[in-house]
Amino acid sequence: MRVTIERSAFLKALNHVQSVVERRNTIPILSNVLVQAKGEAVKLTATDLDIEIIETVAAEVAQDGAVTVAAHMLYDIVRKLPDGAQLELDQGPDTGRVAIKAGRSRFALQALPPEDFPDLNAGELANRFTLKASDLKGLVEKTRFAISTEETRYYLNGIYLHEVAANKTLRAVATDGHRLARAQVPLPEGAKGMPGIIVPRKTVLELVKLIEGDDGEVEVALSASKIRFSCNGLTLTSKLIDGTFPDYERVIPRNNDKTLDVDTKLFSSAVDRVSTISFEKGRAVKLNVGDGRVVLTVNNPDSGSAEEEIAATYDAEPIDIGFNSRYLLDIASQIKSDTARFQLADAGSPTIVLDPSDDQALYVLMPMRV
Amino acid sequence: MRVTIERSAFLKALNHVQSVVERRNTIPILSNVLVQAKGEAVKLTATDLDIEIIETVAAEVAQDGAVTVAAHMLYDIVRKLPDGAQLELDQGPDTGRVAIKAGRSRFALQALPPEDFPDLNAGELANRFTLKASDLKGLVEKTRFAISTEETRYYLNGIYLHEVAANKTLRAVATDGHRLARAQVPLPEGAKGMPGIIVPRKTVLELVKLIEGDDGEVEVALSASKIRFSCNGLTLTSKLIDGTFPDYERVIPRNNDKTLDVDTKLFSSAVDRVSTISFEKGRAVKLNVGDGRVVLTVNNPDSGSAEEEIAATYDAEPIDIGFNSRYLLDIASQIKSDTARFQLADAGSPTIVLDPSDDQALYVLMPMRV
Repeated sequence: MRVTIERSAFLKALNHVQSVVERRNTIPILSNVLVQAKGEAVKLTATDLDIEIIETVAAEVAQDGAVTVAAHMLYDIVRKLPDGAQLELDQGPDTGRVAIKAGRSRFALQALPPEDFPDLNAGELANRFTLKASDLKGLVEKTRFAISTEETRYYLNGIYLHEVAANKTLRAVATDGHRLARAQVPLPEGAKGMPGIIVPRKTVLELVKLIEGDDGEVEVALSASKIRFSCNGLTLTSKLIDGTFPDYERVIPRNNDKTLDVDTKLFSSAVDRVSTISFEKGRAVKLNVGDGRVVLTVNNPDSGSAEEEIAATYDAEPIDIGFNSRYLLDIASQIKSDTARFQLADAGSPTIVLDPSDDQALYVLMPMRV
Repeated sequence: MRVTIERSAFLKALNHVQSVVERRNTIPILSNVLVQAKGEAVKLTATDLDIEIIETVAAEVAQDGAVTVAAHMLYDIVRKLPDGAQLELDQGPDTGRVAIKAGRSRFALQALPPEDFPDLNAGELANRFTLKASDLKGLVEKTRFAISTEETRYYLNGIYLHEVAANKTLRAVATDGHRLARAQVPLPEGAKGMPGIIVPRKTVLELVKLIEGDDGEVEVALSASKIRFSCNGLTLTSKLIDGTFPDYERVIPRNNDKTLDVDTKLFSSAVDRVSTISFEKGRAVKLNVGDGRVVLTVNNPDSGSAEEEIAATYDAEPIDIGFNSRYLLDIASQIKSDTARFQLADAGSPTIVLDPSDDQALYVLMPMRV
């Protein structure tokens, strides 16, 4: 292999693929990135055996070939080279090493044979459709905060992506049993008949990094066990969580008849302020909802108490209800509208939170006893 | 106590004093800040029993008094209040609580009696002098990176500040046995005859935060066991390290006759790049110094090798010498001049590094075997 490649393009691609490589690996080759030179491009592949990211970069290939080298180290080397540098990658007769030259810098990196690099065999991905990157980002960002981190409930450790035939939407749902987030977009052509799938948390995080700032389209291909996202010469393939997502519709209340409107920013800062009084994050904040106002209260026997009143639109009977302050802030941060709308039933029942400017998003929050 | 105080002034002062309060304390009152209202000001005191920071803020005092409340919590509350808010601190008949009001927010914080708050009795501080804040900052910043973290050598866990009568300077020295940093300023009036003292690392860090961006003067008062810095209505008092700083002059070589000049930035980036090849920080980088150039090499049997050549001014006999890459970078980052000057003897002897634009600073670096 002999290749010349421009530093900034190489850096950008390496940044994308190295992100999936774990810092510690029991299998040495998983620390490496596979570099394949052919034609007029270099193809970079990295994997953790669950997710595989591939990116192709234009390069001058003097001699085809393939090699694997330590991903984070290669990334750091390229990152530290001066802007505008041209890198030469050269594998001579000693296949155990790769030489890298740039300006007056010379590196020789240990290499492992490309044949040993694992291939995340995706198999047949029968369902294929295209989504706007902004739509995909919306689905993910509105729901991912609610993904459970409880490993015993592995089927909640991701976003449930599925077709809702009744209203022709592609829907994303995540829940940890205490709160639920649901977002949807019109069903893309080709997604009809797709299986319901659970996309793992790490895949979601990698995906967000890759489509950050992208305003194009993303191609999605999936089967019941794998999913692939492709955009801008970049491919992310991931295994899916093999489990059954619970019937979340049963959790979403239908008859919450008390509507409370508050200013989103005022509400967030009030929750943030009163929750200062509790040392641990996520202590309960009590909402005393009455005519035209909400009083937020936190009591911590060890440190004191806090209370704040904010104006609200509310005309049903007064209600006292408690929520985890962390969860309230998570949901409020998703609401783009100036107003956050709560639909309440009673102090013991799940509450719905809505963004009046976005009828495709819905949040459910379990109350806490206060 | 009843006091009205402007949020931003209160926040700034709290930010300064809470910084010394440890997150975990076995003695509960050490988590607190002492708030004393008298005349037209509020005085804030925080301590960890080794360092005490006091700051005074203008306030409307309706009723004199004193109270102690959780420092980090009070700071967080004030930080989260909207800009421009006026705070009311009110201690009613229940001395176990303090009420805080601002806008529509109300807090009641647990309080502990001010009588129990520890007093860092400074005793007589006989030596008093004034230093420009920029000079004090210079002394500290050029030396603190070399402070030892080895707890067994507690007498190296700070900056040795002392008078050098021979050349009428106030000198700061720090060393960890592998490197040494020395900086000095003309001896201020009043420092003559002062004892040599060791200012602990934490005090140094707090001091840097407090005089950050300050272009005024700092009053220093000290005895053999305590030091006090005062500026801008703020006082930092600290215990000193009770030990004997080693005779560092013996470590500074006098006859290093080989002078090597390199471009500071080029040298730093080359050291940074070649050291990428070693996983742990601080592996040796070998300098092969010859006519008009330095070749930097790092070898790591586990990952590969790196080499880079940079231009240099050097006309003595060639020399191969190894240094800890981390230490080279630490020193290079202190050199403000475009050129870094090395004075070498041989591969086994301490090397001097100088900043040609600052003849008051000097660094010594022990070589590593390569």
